[in-house]
Amino acid sequence: MRQVYVNGDYLPETEARVSIFDRGFLFADGVYEVTLVLDGRLVDFSSHMARLRRSLGELEMPFSLRDENLLEIHRELIERNEVSEGLVYLQVTRGAADRDFIYPKEPTPNTVVLFTQKKSIVDSPLAVHGQHVVTLDDLRWRRCDIKTVQLLYPSMAKMQAKSQGADDAWLVKDGFITEGSSSNAFIVTIDGKIVTRDLSVDILQGITREAVLLYAGNVQLRLEERPFTVEEIENATEAFSTSASGLVNPVVSINGKPIGAGKPGSITADLRQIYVERSRASAI
Amino acid sequence: MRQVYVNGDYLPETEARVSIFDRGFLFADGVYEVTLVLDGRLVDFSSHMARLRRSLGELEMPFSLRDENLLEIHRELIERNEVSEGLVYLQVTRGAADRDFIYPKEPTPNTVVLFTQKKSIVDSPLAVHGQHVVTLDDLRWRRCDIKTVQLLYPSMAKMQAKSQGADDAWLVKDGFITEGSSSNAFIVTIDGKIVTRDLSVDILQGITREAVLLYAGNVQLRLEERPFTVEEIENATEAFSTSASGLVNPVVSINGKPIGAGKPGSITADLRQIYVERSRASAI
Repeated sequence: MRQVYVNGDYLPETEARVSIFDRGFLFADGVYEVTLVLDGRLVDFSSHMARLRRSLGELEMPFSLRDENLLEIHRELIERNEVSEGLVYLQVTRGAADRDFIYPKEPTPNTVVLFTQKKSIVDSPLAVHGQHVVTLDDLRWRRCDIKTVQLLYPSMAKMQAKSQGADDAWLVKDGFITEGSSSNAFIVTIDGKIVTRDLSVDILQGITREAVLLYAGNVQLRLEERPFTVEEIENATEAFSTSASGLVNPVVSINGKPIGAGKPGSITADLRQIYVERSRASAI
Repeated sequence: MRQVYVNGDYLPETEARVSIFDRGFLFADGVYEVTLVLDGRLVDFSSHMARLRRSLGELEMPFSLRDENLLEIHRELIERNEVSEGLVYLQVTRGAADRDFIYPKEPTPNTVVLFTQKKSIVDSPLAVHGQHVVTLDDLRWRRCDIKTVQLLYPSMAKMQAKSQGADDAWLVKDGFITEGSSSNAFIVTIDGKIVTRDLSVDILQGITREAVLLYAGNVQLRLEERPFTVEEIENATEAFSTSASGLVNPVVSINGKPIGAGKPGSITADLRQIYVERSRASAI
């Protein structure tokens, strides 16, 4: 049985519980990170921890564990669960207190939860066949730069995409794509530019997004960070999404219309390969 | 020690736990209701249950408990905890499953949690002195008509109000007040009309809001359900908020500017009294 981590203890998953008064449960007052595991090692770990601390800071949520403590827990879980490829999920909440919108006056210990998920990530069927995506209104709150557990709408959006026969949803705000339901969104234009929305409160500062921009620059691809429209996706030669669990993931249709040749593009495939290679090389 | 209810069991509050895989904890995939208790009896119970079922329906969340089961649990908790005045909190989530944005494919038992809070509600100091309110941008998601546990922003807004020396925040979207951080917002205009925002996806369908509109109509007050601006609040003769825990709660200043005479108004006081009387009479 999977072993998970809850507030200092390693437990079988069936015994892993938190108080009903946990503010993560009552108020979605919690943040999280999902770190990719390749070859039993952690990819972009320090970037995930930096983003975690930014999220905590934006919510003025005290947190005492240090990155080296968290690294040790991540590694312990990977070992105990024999994870060669997959994900480590980490959630930190403001802890348990009697229900009140006001944050607890007494210092309250955080709730810290980690668990692993074994998954085949590099050899994903979606990378071969490509994702079919539909667009939906972005109804999320207006601080999508903070990685909180307020994930109900992304979850609803993914369900709605599935009900339309698609694999995922890309979200639209004021006529422009913000991001995917749990990924950043990219297109490749007919003149060979890689376009993804610029950072703001409207999107998550994706770790894989950042890495892909870096690697694309390294191989002399031209980059543009700006909002783009659904029409631009329809006219793109390629499209893809980035995330820790999806890596660089080709998108082959939007709202039923094929993108480019309607199959995964070569720039996407190259970026995926570069990302996987460099991730394997730099994983810790 | 307080006794609470978790999935069929009555437990001491310190033993009340849910799985770390609960979708309420991981995705804020849960809805809730808070019912007022006066004289040990439940106020507007059937309206709360109707709204709960509407929320569940909007999220396509199956739920098998019937209103009479829920009433029995509410009453049992009131009795066990000897609650004469206070609140009963009820939360229902989609249950526990390995983490995935996609809803669980197998039917998953809901997580059902209830607990009581003893509080002095009718004799609240805020009703005597009135609330000082500041306005903040409404950054919440765009389905505020569904009573989900995505309460991080209301919580942040209340903290921000407190840090400005105020009691609460009223939220502004596109130049108009939507509602309070956890209440509906009302003004009384200089020509004696009671104004509150009309129902839409922008606000919660407040049970107390509904009752107050009914009672105000009964005593021949003129009602207008429409959006109103901050300027209209500044020019109002009275303002108040409604909620299960605050009843009809006077607001005496907005962003540091006094409203009307800068003290709780008489129409607000009358509506509060009518609400309390009728609630005591109809509680079950």
